[in-house]
Amino acid sequence: MKIGILGTGSVGRTLSARLVELGHDVVIGTRDVAATEARAEEPFPAPLATAAAAAADAELIINATSGQVSVAALTGAGAENLAGKVVIDISNPLDFSQGFPPFLSVCNTDSVGEQVQRAFPEARVVKTLNTVTAAVMARPENVAGGDHTLFLSGNDADAKATVAELLREFGWRDIVDLGDITTARGTEMMLPLWVRLMNALGTTEFNYKLVR
Amino acid sequence: MKIGILGTGSVGRTLSARLVELGHDVVIGTRDVAATEARAEEPFPAPLATAAAAAADAELIINATSGQVSVAALTGAGAENLAGKVVIDISNPLDFSQGFPPFLSVCNTDSVGEQVQRAFPEARVVKTLNTVTAAVMARPENVAGGDHTLFLSGNDADAKATVAELLREFGWRDIVDLGDITTARGTEMMLPLWVRLMNALGTTEFNYKLVR
Repeated sequence: MKIGILGTGSVGRTLSARLVELGHDVVIGTRDVAATEARAEEPFPAPLATAAAAAADAELIINATSGQVSVAALTGAGAENLAGKVVIDISNPLDFSQGFPPFLSVCNTDSVGEQVQRAFPEARVVKTLNTVTAAVMARPENVAGGDHTLFLSGNDADAKATVAELLREFGWRDIVDLGDITTARGTEMMLPLWVRLMNALGTTEFNYKLVR
Repeated sequence: MKIGILGTGSVGRTLSARLVELGHDVVIGTRDVAATEARAEEPFPAPLATAAAAAADAELIINATSGQVSVAALTGAGAENLAGKVVIDISNPLDFSQGFPPFLSVCNTDSVGEQVQRAFPEARVVKTLNTVTAAVMARPENVAGGDHTLFLSGNDADAKATVAELLREFGWRDIVDLGDITTARGTEMMLPLWVRLMNALGTTEFNYKLVR
Protein backbone atom coordinates (compact mmCIF):
# COMPACT_ATOMS: atom_id res chain seq x y z
CA MET A 1 0.00 0.00 0.00
CA LYS A 2 1.14 3.60 -0.60
CA ILE A 3 1.51 5.07 2.88
CA GLY A 4 2.38 8.62 3.91
CA ILE A 5 3.74 9.05 7.41
CA LEU A 6 3.68 12.48 9.01
CA GLY A 7 6.23 12.85 11.78
CA THR A 8 9.99 12.27 11.85
CA GLY A 9 10.39 11.30 15.52
CA SER A 10 10.84 7.80 16.88
CA VAL A 11 7.26 6.74 16.09
CA GLY A 12 7.50 7.91 12.48
CA ARG A 13 10.92 6.33 12.01
CA THR A 14 10.03 3.01 13.65
CA LEU A 15 6.75 2.56 11.77
CA SER A 16 8.34 3.61 8.46
CA ALA A 17 11.07 1.00 8.84
CA ARG A 18 8.54 -1.70 9.73
CA LEU A 19 6.21 -0.82 6.84
CA VAL A 20 9.10 -0.83 4.36
CA GLU A 21 10.15 -4.23 5.70
CA LEU A 22 6.57 -5.46 5.15
CA GLY A 23 6.75 -4.34 1.51
CA HIS A 24 4.77 -1.13 1.63
CA ASP A 25 5.60 1.96 -0.40
CA VAL A 26 6.34 4.57 2.29
CA VAL A 27 7.04 8.30 2.10
CA ILE A 28 7.78 10.33 5.24
CA GLY A 29 6.26 13.78 5.19
CA THR A 30 7.80 16.74 7.00
CA ARG A 31 7.31 20.49 6.97
CA ASP A 32 10.80 21.31 5.76
CA VAL A 33 12.64 18.45 4.05
CA ALA A 34 16.05 20.17 3.99
CA ALA A 35 15.87 21.12 7.67
CA THR A 36 14.79 17.61 8.69
CA GLU A 37 17.65 16.07 6.70
CA ALA A 38 20.14 18.57 8.11
CA ARG A 39 19.38 17.69 11.74
CA ALA A 40 18.99 13.91 11.25
CA GLU A 41 21.66 11.87 13.04
CA GLU A 42 21.02 8.82 10.91
CA PRO A 43 19.37 8.15 7.55
CA PHE A 44 15.59 7.79 7.38
CA PRO A 45 14.21 4.36 6.45
CA ALA A 46 12.10 5.83 3.62
CA PRO A 47 12.27 8.88 1.35
CA LEU A 48 11.32 12.29 2.73
CA ALA A 49 8.89 14.65 1.04
CA THR A 50 6.83 17.65 2.05
CA ALA A 51 3.82 16.73 4.16
CA ALA A 52 1.53 17.74 1.28
CA ALA A 53 3.40 15.59 -1.26
CA ALA A 54 3.52 12.60 1.11
CA ALA A 55 -0.21 12.86 1.77
CA ALA A 56 -1.21 13.53 -1.84
CA ASP A 57 0.41 10.34 -3.12
CA ALA A 58 -0.72 8.11 -0.26
CA GLU A 59 -3.68 5.73 -0.02
CA LEU A 60 -3.35 5.73 3.76
CA ILE A 61 -1.86 8.41 6.03
CA ILE A 62 -0.36 7.95 9.49
CA ASN A 63 -0.26 10.88 11.91
CA ALA A 64 2.83 10.28 14.04
CA THR A 65 3.23 13.88 15.20
CA SER A 66 2.81 15.11 18.77
CA GLY A 67 -0.83 15.52 19.76
CA GLN A 68 -0.39 19.20 20.51
CA VAL A 69 0.58 19.97 16.89
CA SER A 70 -1.36 17.27 15.04
CA VAL A 71 -4.13 19.45 13.62
CA ALA A 72 -1.53 21.99 12.45
CA ALA A 73 0.63 19.26 10.87
CA LEU A 74 -2.34 17.74 9.06
CA THR A 75 -3.46 21.20 7.94
CA GLY A 76 0.01 21.56 6.43
CA ALA A 77 -0.55 18.29 4.57
CA GLY A 78 -3.71 19.77 3.04
CA ALA A 79 -7.30 18.83 3.75
CA GLU A 80 -7.75 17.98 0.05
CA ASN A 81 -4.97 15.37 0.37
CA LEU A 82 -6.71 13.69 3.33
CA ALA A 83 -10.27 13.69 1.96
CA GLY A 84 -11.72 10.20 1.65
CA LYS A 85 -8.54 8.56 2.96
CA VAL A 86 -7.88 6.47 6.04
CA VAL A 87 -5.89 8.54 8.56
CA ILE A 88 -4.36 6.55 11.42
CA ASP A 89 -3.96 8.90 14.38
CA ILE A 90 -1.30 7.72 16.85
CA SER A 91 -0.82 11.01 18.65
CA ASN A 92 -1.16 11.73 22.36
CA PRO A 93 -1.69 15.18 23.87
CA LEU A 94 1.21 14.93 26.32
CA ASP A 95 2.26 18.31 27.68
CA PHE A 96 5.70 18.30 29.33
CA SER A 97 5.81 22.09 29.78
CA GLN A 98 5.41 21.68 33.56
CA GLY A 99 7.97 18.84 33.70
CA PHE A 100 7.39 15.21 34.61
CA PRO A 101 4.84 13.73 34.83
CA PRO A 102 3.23 15.33 31.78
CA PHE A 103 -0.43 16.25 31.84
CA LEU A 104 -2.81 16.02 28.90
CA SER A 105 -3.49 19.22 26.96
CA VAL A 106 -6.94 17.85 26.06
CA CYS A 107 -8.94 15.10 27.77
CA ASN A 108 -12.16 14.02 29.48
CA THR A 109 -14.65 15.83 27.20
CA ASP A 110 -12.55 15.82 24.02
CA SER A 111 -9.50 14.12 22.48
CA VAL A 112 -6.94 14.66 19.73
CA GLY A 113 -8.69 11.94 17.74
CA GLU A 114 -11.90 13.96 17.79
CA GLN A 115 -10.08 17.22 17.06
CA VAL A 116 -8.53 15.66 13.96
CA GLN A 117 -11.85 14.19 12.79
CA ARG A 118 -13.62 17.54 13.33
CA ALA A 119 -10.88 19.47 11.51
CA PHE A 120 -10.93 17.05 8.54
CA PRO A 121 -14.50 15.78 8.29
CA GLU A 122 -13.83 14.02 4.97
CA ALA A 123 -10.91 12.03 6.37
CA ARG A 124 -11.67 8.59 7.83
CA VAL A 125 -9.83 8.87 11.14
CA VAL A 126 -8.91 5.75 13.12
CA LYS A 127 -7.26 6.19 16.50
CA THR A 128 -4.95 3.34 17.45
CA LEU A 129 -1.41 2.39 18.53
CA ASN A 130 -1.21 5.39 20.92
CA THR A 131 -1.21 3.17 24.02
CA VAL A 132 2.20 1.53 23.42
CA THR A 133 5.76 2.62 22.71
CA ALA A 134 6.98 2.71 19.09
CA ALA A 135 8.97 -0.54 19.30
CA VAL A 136 5.86 -2.38 20.55
CA MET A 137 3.58 -0.76 17.95
CA ALA A 138 5.74 -2.14 15.15
CA ARG A 139 6.57 -5.49 16.76
CA PRO A 140 4.02 -6.53 19.39
CA GLU A 141 5.91 -9.81 19.79
CA ASN A 142 8.60 -7.80 21.60
CA VAL A 143 6.37 -8.06 24.71
CA ALA A 144 5.10 -11.43 25.98
CA GLY A 145 5.21 -12.94 22.50
CA GLY A 146 2.50 -10.53 21.34
CA ASP A 147 -0.21 -11.78 23.72
CA HIS A 148 -1.72 -8.38 24.57
CA THR A 149 -4.33 -5.95 23.35
CA LEU A 150 -4.69 -2.95 21.05
CA PHE A 151 -7.71 -0.64 20.78
CA LEU A 152 -9.38 0.99 17.76
CA SER A 153 -11.64 4.05 17.69
CA GLY A 154 -13.28 5.56 14.63
CA ASN A 155 -16.54 6.44 12.92
CA ASP A 156 -15.95 4.45 9.70
CA ALA A 157 -16.24 0.66 9.91
CA ASP A 158 -14.44 0.06 6.59
CA ALA A 159 -11.56 2.29 7.66
CA LYS A 160 -11.26 0.35 10.92
CA ALA A 161 -11.22 -2.94 8.97
CA THR A 162 -8.41 -1.63 6.73
CA VAL A 163 -6.41 -0.54 9.76
CA ALA A 164 -6.97 -3.82 11.58
CA GLU A 165 -5.58 -5.68 8.56
CA LEU A 166 -2.43 -3.52 8.62
CA LEU A 167 -2.10 -4.08 12.38
CA ARG A 168 -2.28 -7.83 11.87
CA GLU A 169 0.66 -7.50 9.45
CA PHE A 170 2.59 -5.92 12.36
CA GLY A 171 1.67 -8.96 14.46
CA TRP A 172 -1.28 -7.67 16.49
CA ARG A 173 -3.76 -10.43 17.27
CA ASP A 174 -6.14 -9.02 19.91
CA ILE A 175 -7.62 -5.85 18.39
CA VAL A 176 -10.66 -4.42 20.22
CA ASP A 177 -13.01 -2.00 18.45
CA LEU A 178 -14.18 0.45 21.12
CA GLY A 179 -16.67 2.28 18.90
CA ASP A 180 -16.75 5.77 17.40
CA ILE A 181 -13.98 8.37 17.53
CA THR A 182 -15.16 9.75 20.89
CA THR A 183 -13.80 6.55 22.45
CA ALA A 184 -10.32 7.93 21.69
CA ARG A 185 -10.75 9.86 24.95
CA GLY A 186 -10.46 6.56 26.75
CA THR A 187 -7.20 5.45 25.15
CA GLU A 188 -5.58 8.90 25.29
CA MET A 189 -6.46 9.04 28.99
CA MET A 190 -4.46 5.85 29.57
CA LEU A 191 -1.27 7.84 29.09
CA PRO A 192 -0.99 9.23 32.63
CA LEU A 193 -0.93 5.64 33.91
CA TRP A 194 1.49 4.67 31.15
CA VAL A 195 4.09 7.28 32.12
CA ARG A 196 3.89 6.23 35.79
CA LEU A 197 4.22 2.56 34.88
CA MET A 198 7.25 3.39 32.73
CA ASN A 199 8.81 4.77 35.92
CA ALA A 200 7.67 1.93 38.17
CA LEU A 201 8.72 -0.82 35.74
CA GLY A 202 11.88 0.86 34.40
CA THR A 203 10.99 0.08 30.79
CA THR A 204 8.80 1.41 27.98
CA GLU A 205 8.20 -2.08 26.56
CA PHE A 206 4.98 -3.15 28.26
CA ASN A 207 1.29 -3.28 27.46
CA TYR A 208 -2.02 -4.58 28.78
CA LYS A 209 -3.78 -7.76 27.89
CA LEU A 210 -7.51 -7.31 28.16
CA VAL A 211 -8.75 -10.37 30.07
CA ARG A 212 -12.45 -11.22 29.91
CA MET B 1 -8.95 -7.01 61.39
CA LYS B 2 -11.57 -4.46 62.47
CA ILE B 3 -12.67 -2.80 59.23
CA GLY B 4 -15.07 0.10 58.73
CA ILE B 5 -16.60 0.39 55.27
CA LEU B 6 -18.14 3.69 54.21
CA GLY B 7 -20.69 3.27 51.45
CA THR B 8 -23.78 1.10 51.16
CA GLY B 9 -23.85 0.62 47.38
CA SER B 10 -22.74 -2.46 45.49
CA VAL B 11 -19.03 -1.91 46.23
CA GLY B 12 -19.65 -1.53 49.96
CA ARG B 13 -21.97 -4.53 50.07
CA THR B 14 -19.75 -6.81 47.99
CA LEU B 15 -16.56 -6.02 49.88
CA SER B 16 -18.33 -6.31 53.26
CA ALA B 17 -19.60 -9.76 52.40
CA ARG B 18 -16.18 -10.88 51.20
CA LEU B 19 -14.37 -9.50 54.27
CA VAL B 20 -16.86 -11.18 56.62
CA GLU B 21 -16.31 -14.43 54.74
CA LEU B 22 -12.56 -14.00 55.24
CA GLY B 23 -13.09 -13.65 59.00
CA HIS B 24 -12.76 -9.91 59.42
CA ASP B 25 -14.82 -7.85 61.87
CA VAL B 26 -16.74 -5.50 59.58
CA VAL B 27 -19.03 -2.55 60.31
CA ILE B 28 -20.71 -0.62 57.50
CA GLY B 29 -20.89 3.11 58.10
CA THR B 30 -23.66 5.29 56.71
CA ARG B 31 -24.89 8.82 57.34
CA ASP B 32 -28.36 7.79 58.54
CA VAL B 33 -28.65 4.18 59.72
CA ALA B 34 -32.47 4.16 59.92
CA ALA B 35 -32.86 5.64 56.44
CA THR B 36 -30.35 3.19 54.93
CA GLU B 37 -32.14 0.24 56.57
CA ALA B 38 -35.55 1.54 55.47
CA ARG B 39 -34.62 1.67 51.76
CA ALA B 40 -32.56 -1.56 51.70
CA GLU B 41 -34.09 -4.29 49.54
CA GLU B 42 -32.06 -7.01 51.21
CA PRO B 43 -30.17 -7.37 54.47
CA PHE B 44 -26.63 -6.02 54.73
CA PRO B 45 -23.82 -8.57 55.16
CA ALA B 46 -22.50 -6.76 58.26
CA PRO B 47 -23.92 -4.49 60.96
CA LEU B 48 -24.65 -0.85 60.14
CA ALA B 49 -23.48 2.07 62.26
CA THR B 50 -23.01 5.79 61.76
CA ALA B 51 -19.98 6.64 59.65
CA ALA B 52 -18.29 8.11 62.72
CA ALA B 53 -18.90 5.00 64.84
CA ALA B 54 -17.77 2.67 62.05
CA ALA B 55 -14.56 4.66 61.57
CA ALA B 56 -13.85 5.16 65.29
CA ASP B 57 -13.82 1.44 66.02
CA ALA B 58 -11.92 0.40 62.89
CA GLU B 59 -8.24 -0.33 62.39
CA LEU B 60 -8.64 0.10 58.63
CA ILE B 61 -11.26 2.12 56.75
CA ILE B 62 -12.53 1.58 53.21
CA ASN B 63 -14.01 4.47 51.24
CA ALA B 64 -16.59 2.89 48.95
CA THR B 65 -18.60 6.04 48.33
CA SER B 66 -18.91 7.86 45.01
CA GLY B 67 -15.87 10.00 44.22
CA GLN B 68 -17.93 13.14 44.01
CA VAL B 69 -19.02 12.85 47.68
CA SER B 70 -16.01 11.06 49.16
CA VAL B 71 -14.46 14.01 50.99
CA ALA B 72 -17.87 14.92 52.45
CA ALA B 73 -18.53 11.31 53.51
CA LEU B 74 -15.12 11.02 55.17
CA THR B 75 -15.63 14.39 56.84
CA GLY B 76 -18.82 12.94 58.27
CA ALA B 77 -16.80 10.03 59.63
CA GLY B 78 -14.58 12.52 61.48
CA ALA B 79 -10.97 13.41 60.76
CA GLU B 80 -10.05 12.30 64.30
CA ASN B 81 -11.38 8.81 63.51
CA LEU B 82 -9.19 8.56 60.38
CA ALA B 83 -5.96 9.93 61.85
CA GLY B 84 -3.08 7.46 61.70
CA LYS B 85 -5.25 4.78 60.04
CA VAL B 86 -5.01 3.12 56.65
CA VAL B 87 -7.81 4.43 54.40
CA ILE B 88 -8.39 2.43 51.23
CA ASP B 89 -9.92 4.76 48.64
CA ILE B 90 -11.86 2.89 45.93
CA SER B 91 -13.82 5.86 44.63
CA ASN B 92 -13.98 7.18 41.08
CA PRO B 93 -15.09 10.70 40.12
CA LEU B 94 -17.66 9.54 37.56
CA ASP B 95 -20.17 12.25 36.68
CA PHE B 96 -23.29 10.96 34.93
CA SER B 97 -25.09 14.33 35.05
CA GLN B 98 -24.72 14.68 31.26
CA GLY B 99 -25.73 11.06 30.59
CA PHE B 100 -23.61 8.25 29.18
CA PRO B 101 -20.67 8.14 28.86
CA PRO B 102 -19.84 9.81 32.15
CA PHE B 103 -16.98 12.27 32.36
CA LEU B 104 -14.65 12.69 35.31
CA SER B 105 -15.40 15.54 37.74
CA VAL B 106 -11.69 15.73 38.53
CA CYS B 107 -8.72 14.46 36.51
CA ASN B 108 -5.42 15.20 34.79
CA THR B 109 -3.93 17.58 37.38
CA ASP B 110 -5.69 16.15 40.45
CA SER B 111 -7.59 13.06 41.61
CA VAL B 112 -10.01 11.98 44.32
CA GLY B 113 -7.20 10.05 45.96
CA GLU B 114 -5.21 13.27 46.31
CA GLN B 115 -8.27 15.23 47.45
CA VAL B 116 -8.84 12.70 50.24
CA GLN B 117 -5.17 12.70 51.28
CA ARG B 118 -5.12 16.53 51.34
CA ALA B 119 -8.35 16.73 53.33
CA PHE B 120 -7.11 14.19 55.90
CA PRO B 121 -3.35 14.61 56.06
CA GLU B 122 -3.04 12.28 59.06
CA ALA B 123 -4.81 9.42 57.26
CA ARG B 124 -2.64 6.95 55.34
CA VAL B 125 -4.54 6.86 52.05
CA VAL B 126 -4.04 4.00 49.58
CA LYS B 127 -5.83 4.16 46.25
CA THR B 128 -6.64 0.75 44.79
CA LEU B 129 -9.43 -1.52 43.46
CA ASN B 130 -11.02 1.41 41.55
CA THR B 131 -10.17 -0.07 38.15
CA VAL B 132 -12.45 -3.13 38.37
CA THR B 133 -16.10 -3.88 39.12
CA ALA B 134 -17.10 -4.89 42.66
CA ALA B 135 -17.43 -8.60 41.90
CA VAL B 136 -13.87 -8.66 40.50
CA MET B 137 -12.47 -6.60 43.39
CA ALA B 138 -13.67 -9.20 45.86
CA ARG B 139 -12.98 -12.28 43.76
CA PRO B 140 -10.33 -11.68 41.09
CA GLU B 141 -10.56 -15.36 40.14
CA ASN B 142 -13.94 -14.50 38.55
CA VAL B 143 -11.94 -13.28 35.51
CA ALA B 144 -9.34 -15.49 33.80
CA GLY B 145 -8.64 -17.38 37.01
CA GLY B 146 -7.26 -14.22 38.63
CA ASP B 147 -4.37 -13.78 36.17
CA HIS B 148 -4.57 -9.98 35.89
CA THR B 149 -3.28 -6.82 37.56
CA LEU B 150 -4.21 -4.37 40.29
CA PHE B 151 -2.53 -1.03 41.01
CA LEU B 152 -1.67 0.71 44.30
CA SER B 153 -1.00 4.40 44.91
CA GLY B 154 -0.10 6.03 48.24
CA ASN B 155 2.48 8.00 50.17
CA ASP B 156 2.96 5.49 53.01
CA ALA B 157 4.91 2.31 52.25
CA ASP B 158 3.69 0.47 55.38
CA ALA B 159 0.08 1.32 54.56
CA LYS B 160 0.56 -0.05 51.03
CA ALA B 161 2.07 -3.25 52.46
CA THR B 162 -0.95 -3.69 54.77
CA VAL B 163 -3.34 -3.16 51.87
CA ALA B 164 -1.43 -5.53 49.59
CA GLU B 165 -1.74 -8.24 52.25
CA LEU B 166 -5.51 -7.75 52.41
CA LEU B 167 -5.69 -7.82 48.59
CA ARG B 168 -3.83 -11.12 48.54
CA GLU B 169 -6.53 -12.51 50.86
CA PHE B 170 -9.06 -11.56 48.18
CA GLY B 171 -6.96 -13.50 45.68
CA TRP B 172 -4.96 -10.74 43.98
CA ARG B 173 -1.54 -11.96 42.88
CA ASP B 174 -0.16 -9.26 40.55
CA ILE B 175 -0.21 -6.01 42.58
CA VAL B 176 1.82 -3.12 41.11
CA ASP B 177 2.89 -0.20 43.30
CA LEU B 178 2.75 2.90 41.07
CA GLY B 179 4.21 5.30 43.61
CA ASP B 180 2.80 8.18 45.64
CA ILE B 181 -0.84 9.25 45.82
CA THR B 182 -0.52 11.49 42.74
CA THR B 183 -0.36 8.29 40.66
CA ALA B 184 -4.06 7.85 41.49
CA ARG B 185 -4.66 10.23 38.56
CA GLY B 186 -3.51 7.46 36.28
CA THR B 187 -5.87 4.78 37.58
CA GLU B 188 -8.87 7.12 37.91
CA MET B 189 -8.28 8.20 34.30
CA MET B 190 -8.64 4.57 33.17
CA LEU B 191 -12.37 4.81 33.84
CA PRO B 192 -13.37 6.45 30.54
CA LEU B 193 -11.86 3.44 28.73
CA TRP B 194 -13.50 1.08 31.24
CA VAL B 195 -17.02 2.37 30.57
CA ARG B 196 -16.51 2.09 26.80
CA LEU B 197 -15.12 -1.43 27.14
CA MET B 198 -18.13 -2.37 29.27
CA ASN B 199 -20.25 -1.37 26.27
CA ALA B 200 -18.03 -3.03 23.67
CA LEU B 201 -17.67 -6.30 25.61
CA GLY B 202 -21.20 -6.44 27.07
CA THR B 203 -19.91 -7.26 30.56
CA THR B 204 -18.45 -5.53 33.61
CA GLU B 205 -16.31 -8.53 34.51
CA PHE B 206 -13.01 -7.79 32.79
CA ASN B 207 -9.64 -6.39 33.70
CA TYR B 208 -6.15 -5.84 32.31
CA LYS B 209 -3.12 -8.00 32.79
CA LEU B 210 0.01 -5.89 32.71
CA VAL B 211 2.42 -7.73 30.41
CA ARG B 212 6.12 -6.87 30.57
